[in-house]
Amino acid sequence: MELDFLRWLNTRLSSHPWLGVGPGDDAAVLQLGEAGNQVVTCDLIADGVHFRAECDEPRRIGRKALAVNLSDLAAMAARPLAAFVSVAIPQQDSQGATAAPHPPGERFPAELAEQLYDGILSLAQQYDVAIAGGDTNVWHGPLVINVTLIGATDKRKPLLRDGAIPGDRLIVTGSFGGSSLGHHFDFKPRVTEAMRLAEEYQLHAGMDCSDGLALDVGRLAEASDCGATVVPASIPIAEDARRLATETPEQTAIEHALGDGEDFELILAVPPKEAERLLAEQPLEIPLHDIGTFTERRGLWQSDGDRLLPLKPTGYEHGSQR
Amino acid sequence: MELDFLRWLNTRLSSHPWLGVGPGDDAAVLQLGEAGNQVVTCDLIADGVHFRAECDEPRRIGRKALAVNLSDLAAMAARPLAAFVSVAIPQQDSQGATAAPHPPGERFPAELAEQLYDGILSLAQQYDVAIAGGDTNVWHGPLVINVTLIGATDKRKPLLRDGAIPGDRLIVTGSFGGSSLGHHFDFKPRVTEAMRLAEEYQLHAGMDCSDGLALDVGRLAEASDCGATVVPASIPIAEDARRLATETPEQTAIEHALGDGEDFELILAVPPKEAERLLAEQPLEIPLHDIGTFTERRGLWQSDGDRLLPLKPTGYEHGSQR
Repeated sequence: MELDFLRWLNTRLSSHPWLGVGPGDDAAVLQLGEAGNQVVTCDLIADGVHFRAECDEPRRIGRKALAVNLSDLAAMAARPLAAFVSVAIPQQDSQGATAAPHPPGERFPAELAEQLYDGILSLAQQYDVAIAGGDTNVWHGPLVINVTLIGATDKRKPLLRDGAIPGDRLIVTGSFGGSSLGHHFDFKPRVTEAMRLAEEYQLHAGMDCSDGLALDVGRLAEASDCGATVVPASIPIAEDARRLATETPEQTAIEHALGDGEDFELILAVPPKEAERLLAEQPLEIPLHDIGTFTERRGLWQSDGDRLLPLKPTGYEHGSQR
Repeated sequence: MELDFLRWLNTRLSSHPWLGVGPGDDAAVLQLGEAGNQVVTCDLIADGVHFRAECDEPRRIGRKALAVNLSDLAAMAARPLAAFVSVAIPQQDSQGATAAPHPPGERFPAELAEQLYDGILSLAQQYDVAIAGGDTNVWHGPLVINVTLIGATDKRKPLLRDGAIPGDRLIVTGSFGGSSLGHHFDFKPRVTEAMRLAEEYQLHAGMDCSDGLALDVGRLAEASDCGATVVPASIPIAEDARRLATETPEQTAIEHALGDGEDFELILAVPPKEAERLLAEQPLEIPLHDIGTFTERRGLWQSDGDRLLPLKPTGYEHGSQR
């Protein structure tokens, strides 16, 4: 599907000397010389894809629009600085309901706009992010919000996807699965966690888990030209994944953990000795778990201790270029 | 209407020491110390508001998405560097037509995506802009594209809206009106022109004319705490404005020039002596015209030589925070 488009696009992109990392990682890296590296990401969230405007609270939708971008900067172990927020808000009719398609006119849905921004602003304050600009439009379509987030790694190198080497341990923060029950709105982007780990430990590679643990581990391995073996029994499973598995028995809790996505936890490649120290010290308020290893052998694998079987890269495939 | 929302938003924004200019000008200015000023803008264009997907060519739509942002950097006399492109593309049904609302699935509208990017990429190449990142989504809504554009003014100060002083001449590039006939897609963002003028002449203030000449001159005056008097007889009227006036006699050509918007020409406040030199030298390939003056007396005025009458700030009022 859109992979062909992304390949087409990549052949058309030209290189620039100051563009350290272009499309393909969690964020782009602009090399600004003495001012260090700037890390920039953008994510668009849309009604019917990332939220449902008819039932989700606008405040949570706004929060999510910024939070997914914060998670992308966490993936690079970058400090967020300034956000740019573009919104296309559905026009309201005189009853306050969303109107059928017609040209945008007088009725600005101020209440919806303020609630969206309430969610954005309170999270921005929490992470000391400036809302530096934006573009608010009223239209006849459903709600869509784009946030572009600029951050910096100062003198430190950003954490990329392509640095894992065979033998590295596969370390994750937090727990996985069941995010549709609420975590996909209320998750805490691992910004401070990623910066702390990048400062105090040697990390070879990292990304955030947005599309599914199996799919994203596979992507990290592929970007690093290696393979990965996951030990399913060691994956920390979220309470909500267990709840979903109880309610709908066609998927097990571990399947939810591997494929649900929107966990927004960190996936890290850490050299074995360093991983040992990291797991012993557990420096974060949230747990760190070793769930596998990166391997010479390409592809995505699962191990039950004795046997090595292929692992399906379950998750949500979309058209993100980052 | 949305002005109340923008006022509400401004009271909620917190200040940051490195944020030189926040929402309110054509772009934000991030002060990066030794690396100089960074200038950032974002503009979202949406089906039914800025284009009509059912009849406009995707290539021109893509071009416009980047061009309006280039024009915002021109307004700051900044050099564009890197663009981040977020797209929400309507899903296609098996006939290739846009599908009715249902969850996004397999059919990625690759042809549309490639045509949009064709327009973006060729303009990016022309202005030496890197497409550094993006986010492509398929959804059940109409087409929407957001571009965030990062630029720099190096050691030079960015051109702001708030520097006009009474007595400054009101100088514009190019001609005005009738952009709906095609100019709103095919306009040439005045990037090199603005940089050249900012380097070689003393400019007090500037912006790009996106919403209507009268409205935007009024905004520049207001941002500078002064008024402006326009001499309608001296406004350069675009051929397309004359054509529109002939076809639909309810609006004169000068009314089109004052209110149509999407001209994407520069509006500048230039000290009188410097304006004289600028007009005599005409350093650009496009003409520069003196169409009025900035005044102590607040408000927007028009002069026919003898009398001074109020001028209605005609144009397109929307929710942009830039």
